[in-house]
Amino acid sequence: MCRFLVGNISLLHQDTISHGFTQVYKGKSEILLSHLILDPAHSILTQSYDSRLRLDRRRPHNGDGFGVGYYTAPALGPEPCIFTSTIPAWNCINLERLASKTVSKLVFAHVRATTEGNLSDSNCHPFRCGSLMWMHNGGIGSWRHVKRRLAASLGDEWFLGVQGSTDSEWAFALFLDSLHKAGYDPSGDAGEGGFGHTVLRKAILKTIERINAFIAEIPAHLKGADEDARSLLNFAVTDGHSVVCTRYV
Amino acid sequence: MCRFLVGNISLLHQDTISHGFTQVYKGKSEILLSHLILDPAHSILTQSYDSRLRLDRRRPHNGDGFGVGYYTAPALGPEPCIFTSTIPAWNCINLERLASKTVSKLVFAHVRATTEGNLSDSNCHPFRCGSLMWMHNGGIGSWRHVKRRLAASLGDEWFLGVQGSTDSEWAFALFLDSLHKAGYDPSGDAGEGGFGHTVLRKAILKTIERINAFIAEIPAHLKGADEDARSLLNFAVTDGHSVVCTRYV
Amino acid sequence: MCRFLVGNISLLHQDTISHGFTQVYKGKSEILLSHLILDPAHSILTQSYDSRLRLDRRRPHNGDGFGVGYYTAPALGPEPCIFTSTIPAWNCINLERLASKTVSKLVFAHVRATTEGNLSDSNCHPFRCGSLMWMHNGGIGSWRHVKRRLAASLGDEWFLGVQGSTDSEWAFALFLDSLHKAGYDPSGDAGEGGFGHTVLRKAILKTIERINAFIAEIPAHLKGADEDARSLLNFAVTDGHSVVCTRYV
Amino acid sequence: MCRFLVGNISLLHQDTISHGFTQVYKGKSEILLSHLILDPAHSILTQSYDSRLRLDRRRPHNGDGFGVGYYTAPALGPEPCIFTSTIPAWNCINLERLASKTVSKLVFAHVRATTEGNLSDSNCHPFRCGSLMWMHNGGIGSWRHVKRRLAASLGDEWFLGVQGSTDSEWAFALFLDSLHKAGYDPSGDAGEGGFGHTVLRKAILKTIERINAFIAEIPAHLKGADEDARSLLNFAVTDGHSVVCTRYV
Repeated sequence: MCRFLVGNISLLHQDTISHGFTQVYKGKSEILLSHLILDPAHSILTQSYDSRLRLDRRRPHNGDGFGVGYYTAPALGPEPCIFTSTIPAWNCINLERLASKTVSKLVFAHVRATTEGNLSDSNCHPFRCGSLMWMHNGGIGSWRHVKRRLAASLGDEWFLGVQGSTDSEWAFALFLDSLHKAGYDPSGDAGEGGFGHTVLRKAILKTIERINAFIAEIPAHLKGADEDARSLLNFAVTDGHSVVCTRYV
Repeated sequence: MCRFLVGNISLLHQDTISHGFTQVYKGKSEILLSHLILDPAHSILTQSYDSRLRLDRRRPHNGDGFGVGYYTAPALGPEPCIFTSTIPAWNCINLERLASKTVSKLVFAHVRATTEGNLSDSNCHPFRCGSLMWMHNGGIGSWRHVKRRLAASLGDEWFLGVQGSTDSEWAFALFLDSLHKAGYDPSGDAGEGGFGHTVLRKAILKTIERINAFIAEIPAHLKGADEDARSLLNFAVTDGHSVVCTRYV
Repeated sequence: MCRFLVGNISLLHQDTISHGFTQVYKGKSEILLSHLILDPAHSILTQSYDSRLRLDRRRPHNGDGFGVGYYTAPALGPEPCIFTSTIPAWNCINLERLASKTVSKLVFAHVRATTEGNLSDSNCHPFRCGSLMWMHNGGIGSWRHVKRRLAASLGDEWFLGVQGSTDSEWAFALFLDSLHKAGYDPSGDAGEGGFGHTVLRKAILKTIERINAFIAEIPAHLKGADEDARSLLNFAVTDGHSVVCTRYV
Repeated sequence: MCRFLVGNISLLHQDTISHGFTQVYKGKSEILLSHLILDPAHSILTQSYDSRLRLDRRRPHNGDGFGVGYYTAPALGPEPCIFTSTIPAWNCINLERLASKTVSKLVFAHVRATTEGNLSDSNCHPFRCGSLMWMHNGGIGSWRHVKRRLAASLGDEWFLGVQGSTDSEWAFALFLDSLHKAGYDPSGDAGEGGFGHTVLRKAILKTIERINAFIAEIPAHLKGADEDARSLLNFAVTDGHSVVCTRYV
């Protein structure tokens, strides 16, 4: 049974959505990043812990890297600015200084709890391509059997663009490939209003569909234990105008 | 004989001043930080090397940390935003991303060539206190004999504020102490126009005078070899409005 | 009332002592560092948290840096080898690889929970001077009033040797100064058997005595609130042969 | 025309071989790592620069990461210990401390000059699998067209083992796959004498042969400009006993 939700945050004003270790802000007015990231009342740093994600209970739950992405004044171009950190967010003096001096109308923030991929700037969310920004809270089930199928299904441009080793970045490549195959240019300028939430929503649903198809192809005897085989596909994507989130367990 | 210069950059418009490894921009219109920092034509990363500074010729000359400070829209407060990096600037992906999405009317940038203090974020210029920002290209002569005298001469607040181990940060503490003893509150809000260049200039001259007095106190037999005893006091200070630079050899 | 303990670990064989975030191993045979540091059963990474230390309960308790020091075969000299990390120990791939390939008969390990000093390699314990190694679990009470007094009391060599900004490193400088004033050369070679536990014990007691004297000098109205004024002086020092630990609350 | 060389360093005693940014030591007696890495006379840090490698002449030539791998006493197992650093070697205090306290009979050291893959611990050589260690000085020609072909040709285990984004690590995966297809278990214990130089040499020649076949498959119109299409396949591999190096231009 499918239980998923596609949220269109562009309908919301002045609000934040968070699931697990990710946080999205989209509002009519600009927010100071430090309000979103560092203040105890809102911060994803102090959010309660999503136990379904935690694989290794001996380790702290949010120390595997951090990232924040935000859109600037249109004059500086449609691409978001990304700041990532492999030291924990609570110790990153640059993050603290930048967040207290940066405002934006649309912010993504992400704290990593490793499920796949080692500690590296290349593995920190959000990921970016052109004006698009992507983050993922969760994991792709049976990843070691999905990875080759997913990689083989991608156009060259998206295959070559992957820099790190996380399933989340490969899922983003799959999203970009799906958007491209739907007739859009993910790395180009989408124009004043962006791609629009309908286009983004369709591409993200296609992405989930393709992931499920890869998993369905895996011979039963190769699938791992229950926990490893389950996917948690909480994605958030934005083009700087529309935000689409999925909650798929 | 004294050969020094106090430049008041606030008289200049749309221009950059650089000496050695530091770079100052102050203009009527905003500059994109990446133009200042990363573009080959202007960049301090590609500046020629000041041979007087280089103590250890076996090492690359600008790989000991990097920092950039800039003032934001007044609504975000009078303090500058500081970004420092202990990995070399040319490899710092965060710097590249931030610089291409950040504009400012007043920017300080600094590349460290170690003379004193190890590799640490705490040792990267520019240093900040309230709305003031400070950087130094050079070194204080006979530092091991000056340090105690300098530290002992400081008020508690400035003594305790030193976080790193560079002579440059101690010189900044001395500047703050001099400004304070002249009747100003360095960590407070200096108001709409800042402290003004006259106040900053007097405080920086006082700083140099005090450093020279500490050096004069050192018994001749304790002073080091010629090279170590020479000071190179190229300071730059700003309150977000006026910029004062010294060139003192 | 004084409640303290000076443990002489050299009386113990094949054993580890841990208090708070520090861990000492001294044995007749070599231990693989990963057994001490990374194995869940012994690891200081999983040790329970000392609530007296925790100042900011919103932050994880052991993510402010890590360090390990160990003595090698005598042919490589009497100094310990130190490895420090500003990324959390649980994420440090170098630590994991080195610990699984390094053995020693005498190991110090330390996880920082910040009380004083920012995140920097220079602030990670253990600190080293010649053959001596030092770590501290706790803090010096009324530090902002003690720091100047402590610094002023030190000989030049120990004053200039401080690289970071922690009270723990200044306490080590005080220990070195005390050892020196007792007639020993802390940075020199102490010979085959080291300084001996009597010498180390006397110097560490002198260090505590001097700290208490500095605190006693502070005018009552300047002392901070109760929590800030209390010292927690759990020190461990070794010369590669004897280990002395204090527990002073 | 093929111009290559396969060196079998196990024939040499007490000697080092270096090409470009890599350095190999294999000797009958142990060497202190700091002699190999940090001393000006031998150090790869001060080696002259191989101009064929340098793509971007505005950047320093050896600041893109560093790695050293060495074998320990057999009692600690057949795998090498690897230390990597994304800060430049000349600034890495841990490297300096470890190198002065570590000895080994077989050492690989590598300084990265980026041709492919961003700054990340995962991209630093040497790469390791079981008892095998690998490094590469150069690049695979027409990499964007070779990558998919190379990835598709690998067995699952080697495909999934790649953690970073360098052509060098993929070449190592290809070597492991070639060794495996020749009937050996790369990740297993090869026994007392290792795989032997004949086996390693055959596998490395097979690796080069396969790379050349991938390049030959690329349609002529897709191949890049001359510079990009040329391969520089200077590999070094060891199992802890034999060392095989190639020089293939």
